[in-house]
Amino acid sequence: MITSTSNPRVKRVRALQTRRSEREQEHAFVIEGIRLAREAVRAQVPARLVFHTEQIDARGRGLVNSLARLGAEIQVVTPAIMAACSATESPPGLLAVVDLPQRPLPSPLTFALVIDGLGDPGNLGTILRSAWASGAEAIFLSDGTVDPFNPKVVRAGMGSHFDLPLCSFAGDQLPEALAGMSLWVAQARTGLHYASVDWRTPVAILIGSEAEGPRPELRRRATGLVQIPMRREAESLNAAVAASILLFEVLRQRGQP
Amino acid sequence: MITSTSNPRVKRVRALQTRRSEREQEHAFVIEGIRLAREAVRAQVPARLVFHTEQIDARGRGLVNSLARLGAEIQVVTPAIMAACSATESPPGLLAVVDLPQRPLPSPLTFALVIDGLGDPGNLGTILRSAWASGAEAIFLSDGTVDPFNPKVVRAGMGSHFDLPLCSFAGDQLPEALAGMSLWVAQARTGLHYASVDWRTPVAILIGSEAEGPRPELRRRATGLVQIPMRREAESLNAAVAASILLFEVLRQRGQP
Repeated sequence: MITSTSNPRVKRVRALQTRRSEREQEHAFVIEGIRLAREAVRAQVPARLVFHTEQIDARGRGLVNSLARLGAEIQVVTPAIMAACSATESPPGLLAVVDLPQRPLPSPLTFALVIDGLGDPGNLGTILRSAWASGAEAIFLSDGTVDPFNPKVVRAGMGSHFDLPLCSFAGDQLPEALAGMSLWVAQARTGLHYASVDWRTPVAILIGSEAEGPRPELRRRATGLVQIPMRREAESLNAAVAASILLFEVLRQRGQP
Repeated sequence: MITSTSNPRVKRVRALQTRRSEREQEHAFVIEGIRLAREAVRAQVPARLVFHTEQIDARGRGLVNSLARLGAEIQVVTPAIMAACSATESPPGLLAVVDLPQRPLPSPLTFALVIDGLGDPGNLGTILRSAWASGAEAIFLSDGTVDPFNPKVVRAGMGSHFDLPLCSFAGDQLPEALAGMSLWVAQARTGLHYASVDWRTPVAILIGSEAEGPRPELRRRATGLVQIPMRREAESLNAAVAASILLFEVLRQRGQP
């Protein structure tokens, strides 16, 4: 049983939890808890290392076995070590280091989301969860955006990370994969009513940072601006809510994901 | 200048930040930061006490003066005292104790939201923000729901607390104000497509807890269930996202808030 925070495996997990550079170099990230472990097993993601406490229940033990079959080394740790490795206030009974998923881009691409500069990890995770549920086929994240494998993004994403192609791009030009698609920028109080756009053609939706929207280089490439009309006295919507309303309008018009 | 956490005003602010019973007894709550202070001034909410640091800028000073005109006692505090009173990780330059708003229910009521058992304060705040923006006229919160004046709810609510009538009710029966309105329950994977409901008649939307939905006593009173169709493999949406998609479908059908 691992009991010390100076154990090299503990140090590795903590580095992956706290540093984007570590995740990118190791090409791995950490998932916490039963639910995400179940999603990883469902998606058959290669697993490298599992920490679990002795207190996990039968369901947890079943998942540990499944993760072992996906390649993970299994280690029992004390609750104190689990707490030291967890990014949450209530540490789970198990966590796992798994490969960064690499889903291929579908071809042709007909429904994508482009994110530039979003800073709040909870917002990004919620957007990924909505994007996956709405039938979006890929997410493009500019270099100014919070890391999608940040622990808070992973938690709010509820497993969507395993299914959605997530592509990073340099924010000064659009990814080539979006050539030929309409690009609509979500904007407060300007542009077309979001429900008056025909979303049944190949489309990408561009979501910018909470405070400033997308950078000018990307905005200039847009087909147009769309807004979600709202009560005059209200200032704006939460960024994840605004993105989700647009994503589900696409699905409403298309009829099925 | 207040420099000690044993100052009675500091103790009072900290009690209001941490205890619902204190907020209900004093009939007051705490708002933090420039943005919420501006909203309080706009809504002309009676203010009781302002703490600010010496470092606030001209805009902050202007708001302090406006809050003084709304009745607030003004106190300069050290950054350490502000940090001890703040519910956020980055303490603001000012905070204020203001009256719990009491907006009258509009009559007739045509668009309401009923919340039963929602537990996450960020979700509730985001829902209040969306509800206000979408034109909802009142929110009814059952006794099993997180306090709408919890600091995290207030922060995510972005000022909607000052404008929306917020009514609490014992969760075992529906509020009388909803008599004669349709009541639709949001539910994953069962019920009518949310866009096939006619939302132009007087309607209330019932949102339950993240894990279990609304309690049976309330569910039994529903006109019907509505769902937001989604990709089969996706499990569910974030509760604030699901509520917001329904709220904005009402607005889309009605055309204006």
